Amino acid sequence: MDFFKNYTSLIDNAIRELPMKGGALAGLYDPIAYGLDAGGKRIRPVLTLIACQASCGTPNPAIPAALAVEMFHNFTLLHDDVMDNSPTRRGKPSVFSKYGLNAAVLSGDTMLSMAMDMLCRLPDSALRAALECFNRHTIEVYEGQQMDIDFESRDTVTVDEYLEMIRLKTSVLLGCAAKLGAISGAATPMEQDLWYRYAEALGLAFQIQDDRLDVYGDPATFGKPIGGDILNNKKTWLLLTALDSPVAACVREVMAMDPSAEKIDAMRRLYDEACVPELCAEAIAGYTHEALLSLDALTLPAAIHTALADFTSRLADRQK
Amino acid sequence: MDFFKNYTSLIDNAIRELPMKGGALAGLYDPIAYGLDAGGKRIRPVLTLIACQASCGTPNPAIPAALAVEMFHNFTLLHDDVMDNSPTRRGKPSVFSKYGLNAAVLSGDTMLSMAMDMLCRLPDSALRAALECFNRHTIEVYEGQQMDIDFESRDTVTVDEYLEMIRLKTSVLLGCAAKLGAISGAATPMEQDLWYRYAEALGLAFQIQDDRLDVYGDPATFGKPIGGDILNNKKTWLLLTALDSPVAACVREVMAMDPSAEKIDAMRRLYDEACVPELCAEAIAGYTHEALLSLDALTLPAAIHTALADFTSRLADRQK
Repeated sequence: MDFFKNYTSLIDNAIRELPMKGGALAGLYDPIAYGLDAGGKRIRPVLTLIACQASCGTPNPAIPAALAVEMFHNFTLLHDDVMDNSPTRRGKPSVFSKYGLNAAVLSGDTMLSMAMDMLCRLPDSALRAALECFNRHTIEVYEGQQMDIDFESRDTVTVDEYLEMIRLKTSVLLGCAAKLGAISGAATPMEQDLWYRYAEALGLAFQIQDDRLDVYGDPATFGKPIGGDILNNKKTWLLLTALDSPVAACVREVMAMDPSAEKIDAMRRLYDEACVPELCAEAIAGYTHEALLSLDALTLPAAIHTALADFTSRLADRQK
Repeated sequence: MDFFKNYTSLIDNAIRELPMKGGALAGLYDPIAYGLDAGGKRIRPVLTLIACQASCGTPNPAIPAALAVEMFHNFTLLHDDVMDNSPTRRGKPSVFSKYGLNAAVLSGDTMLSMAMDMLCRLPDSALRAALECFNRHTIEVYEGQQMDIDFESRDTVTVDEYLEMIRLKTSVLLGCAAKLGAISGAATPMEQDLWYRYAEALGLAFQIQDDRLDVYGDPATFGKPIGGDILNNKKTWLLLTALDSPVAACVREVMAMDPSAEKIDAMRRLYDEACVPELCAEAIAGYTHEALLSLDALTLPAAIHTALADFTSRLADRQK
């Protein structure tokens, strides 16, 4: 969408202008430049800039905060790939596989300190609120990642526990991104809070839709093979909901099957029987509604309100 | 020394009072508590507290900064042990070997964000200067670590390059620790700078003495087998100085020997021939002198001046 493109360009340009030391320190900074350039959607920093624009009429005061958020997000990807032993990221070799373990760890650390350094470019009037927001929510991201790791080896996880995990692991950073924009734009604390709640709910809708697409996505547009989560018995919103339904025993039997096309089909039949697709659509609609309520409570310029409401509603229908 | 013990206790108590979430998040916070409790000397946070005491008569305003520095230092140890694949740290299992790779990476990340969070407890009057100091020098620490990694695979490294590496990897954090104490105690920028320079020079003297002890230490007190660096051809101040002397060719021949007691003896003879022990003592004395000059330039309470000058001079004679 053109509305978002201007903000994406602003971020891309600001990233390109970051000083990245070469020479003797290329081993440290090349992986950072590579990680930042790996074609992310820039959703978080765009939210930061839009919230700032809505608050004070220009996105510019929020550029340091937007860079800090994008830098932090990409730092977590470097370390996640180390922990997951992931060879690829966004269809390209991960920093971990391209530059090795040491680079992924150390360049990641550097990105986190660089993010803090960027945040400190904010004026005194915004500095403390921005830091408190950033520190609190970055620590929550680690807590969410820890829960995600722990869930893998646990036999039972409730849907509520899962929701709390994805809230911490992904949604709070979206909330933080939007709130930092509001802080940078000198919005009131109530407006800052509404921006946070808007983006956190958006993140939950987004993440559940992610789980849904893995099973019900269109293979032509999804970009990955359908059913990967079922083959891996991944504890998604769908699986945990089915395990909390009358067909739970059958679901456990299918989980015990070796990976195969039949396993995917069998699980989909059980999901259908337990009304998982309908419940999933309802959950996504609920978080989308919550996000829109926060958006409505903000008195936004019409163009921004329309663009964000449209973006939010269309999340539920996205195919990739 | 009793003078330092009070400050060490202050730090130990403050660390014990840190909230460490258990329950579902024990996997994240237990490794942090373990890493912080692993018996470090607390040199950095003690410097922070002393610099604050000297500046404003009490160490208390600097407790958040002291905790931040100690937290950061221990975070680097968690990640260093991942990068070096180290099973032990301070005679105990490393976090990496006790809790695994994921914990060492993720709990380490959390420590860095917690360090930032602690620093934000400083009052507005100190906040920005403290953050700028902290961010700048933490990034330098990563740069030093990167240089250290790169040096391992390089054929030639000059003594100056080595000094720059140890300055970045270890000394700047000592400088930062002392400066943060001065900032917390509302010292003038000139005093802050003198504290930084004192501790940075102290760190260089300390690190070169570390290299010296590995070869010339007393086996009874050193705690590790003597000559480990020689056996590993580790690029220390001693080796690089010998490689920059007329006996360089012989040094390279000894480096090519398999590890053995003879290798250690042969290298020591070459070091003696190249006057490495004398040059090393001179270098340590030079940095010690530099540290004492900065100390003298600060107008310190007599008790603090005496204790620090004594501590600084005795560094050159330490046996472990």
